[in-house]
Amino acid sequence: MPVTFADVEAAAVRIAPYVHHTPVFTSAALDEWLGATTFLKGEHLQRGGAFKYRGATNAVQSLTEEEARRGVAAHSSGNHAGALARAARARGIPAYVVMPDSVRAVKKAAVLAYGASITSCENTPASREATLRDVVAKTGAVEIHPYDNDRVIAGAGTAALELLQSVPDLDVVIAPVGGGGLLSGTAIAAHGVRPDVTVVGGEPALADDAAQSLGLGTIQPARPPTTSADGLLTALAPRTFAVLREHVAEIVTVEETEILDAMQLVWQFTKQVIEASAAVAVAAVRKRGFDGARVGVIASGGNVDLDPMFAVLR
Amino acid sequence: MPVTFADVEAAAVRIAPYVHHTPVFTSAALDEWLGATTFLKGEHLQRGGAFKYRGATNAVQSLTEEEARRGVAAHSSGNHAGALARAARARGIPAYVVMPDSVRAVKKAAVLAYGASITSCENTPASREATLRDVVAKTGAVEIHPYDNDRVIAGAGTAALELLQSVPDLDVVIAPVGGGGLLSGTAIAAHGVRPDVTVVGGEPALADDAAQSLGLGTIQPARPPTTSADGLLTALAPRTFAVLREHVAEIVTVEETEILDAMQLVWQFTKQVIEASAAVAVAAVRKRGFDGARVGVIASGGNVDLDPMFAVLR
Repeated sequence: MPVTFADVEAAAVRIAPYVHHTPVFTSAALDEWLGATTFLKGEHLQRGGAFKYRGATNAVQSLTEEEARRGVAAHSSGNHAGALARAARARGIPAYVVMPDSVRAVKKAAVLAYGASITSCENTPASREATLRDVVAKTGAVEIHPYDNDRVIAGAGTAALELLQSVPDLDVVIAPVGGGGLLSGTAIAAHGVRPDVTVVGGEPALADDAAQSLGLGTIQPARPPTTSADGLLTALAPRTFAVLREHVAEIVTVEETEILDAMQLVWQFTKQVIEASAAVAVAAVRKRGFDGARVGVIASGGNVDLDPMFAVLR
Repeated sequence: MPVTFADVEAAAVRIAPYVHHTPVFTSAALDEWLGATTFLKGEHLQRGGAFKYRGATNAVQSLTEEEARRGVAAHSSGNHAGALARAARARGIPAYVVMPDSVRAVKKAAVLAYGASITSCENTPASREATLRDVVAKTGAVEIHPYDNDRVIAGAGTAALELLQSVPDLDVVIAPVGGGGLLSGTAIAAHGVRPDVTVVGGEPALADDAAQSLGLGTIQPARPPTTSADGLLTALAPRTFAVLREHVAEIVTVEETEILDAMQLVWQFTKQVIEASAAVAVAAVRKRGFDGARVGVIASGGNVDLDPMFAVLR
């Protein structure tokens, strides 16, 4: 049975003791650049620096006592790993994370800081899956998929639920799309609160498998990882593909320069450090043009490797 | 007559319709690094991206109608110029700003965007003063000094007033010191609310004229501008020197690498873009060590030239 609005509402209650109710940011200068009245839901200020903690917490807190004792496991290119490690620690259970070698050090450090075990793998879907199967076989842990999981999707949707509760009269809600968990949860939440809102996805042109999938009507595989938006590399799952087909009006694809322009201007105008994956949704607002509409953007995270940027100042 | 706590309270009422009541940021990870429970007063989210709008607004809104008609003038290395331009526009009066040629483009653009006139000068105190005298002679505008002005000092103090109202039980309040306007206002406000709070200044070691002045008992001139904290280049004025001698327990000087370390970690842990001048106060907390005390930090601004930092991503 697919995720319902009631599931998102239940998730919001379940995770409330653990997650931040994040603020919404606005900027007249940003609005002028975007050509829309824009409300940035600041999930970069969520625990762990990304919306992922919502879904991970909903999944971990939904486990039975028996399941919880065995712990949780996942593969992740970054933010989900940190979120799951943190959610597991909040419940006092083990977390086993499979991460590609290529993942940035800042994201690995966040996972280790929360007491999780990391198993490295190659940066391919096949290697991730095989390594995770090994880990689950050895530990008996419950797999918590980063997005192909109803409780993760429902948890992710609570960000949009909060946004719509703060700013009810939105015309458009937009979120970045990688595996589609955030956009699925966002769509279910947004249409639950406001059935006539237009739900849009933002996707890097260099990782436009979701746009291709919706256009062709079948799930297309992820492309080789070349975009700076390294949280959006994964392909849709049947579960998220179904939600997106039902709820999403459009996927807007954006070029790398458009992503970086949006990221820099959000930093400049709002003083908020959002990561490239979050900037994809902002760039999509600019590219698509919403003609003065009221647009809610899920600013999905703020985990940026600042070392190379600060190196130029040192 | 020196600025009093009543002046700060009156300024808070006068400027309330125009300024943001900025949020306070906390971070467990930052506290661990700093060895203190730290509360960052987020003046980077003030209008114009810096606390300067408070003092400029208090000065502009205090003008008589006759004075206001003539407009306002100032020399400034950046944030005061933008703040004065914006404050003047809010009252619908002209602003004339003298800026050194070396000022970063982002700060010049902010001034021009608010309709002010810019007159360029060399980056020396003598050139600034002479150019400003010319501008005032030509226009009849009222000079609003960036810090050697009681209303500017009282306005600057409203940030600390808000901080102490939000977090009353602070042991220490710390602000960066350049010309001493912010630190003077901060000290008067903090001691007005809480007479036993310890007021500390943070200053770049490469621009340690305030520390030298307090140590020697006479105002020392500004040194050649070499610090990254480009908002803190100016020397104390007799007015601020007197306040600092009375109220400030200590000036902590920090090296450039310490400033950049603090700046990067604030960005990483809080996702807030603060400028180097603000990071000076954070770096001073780390360097001095406050042994678990509750420390309020005036994060004075967030106007960073992001172009070179983003260039490495492009």
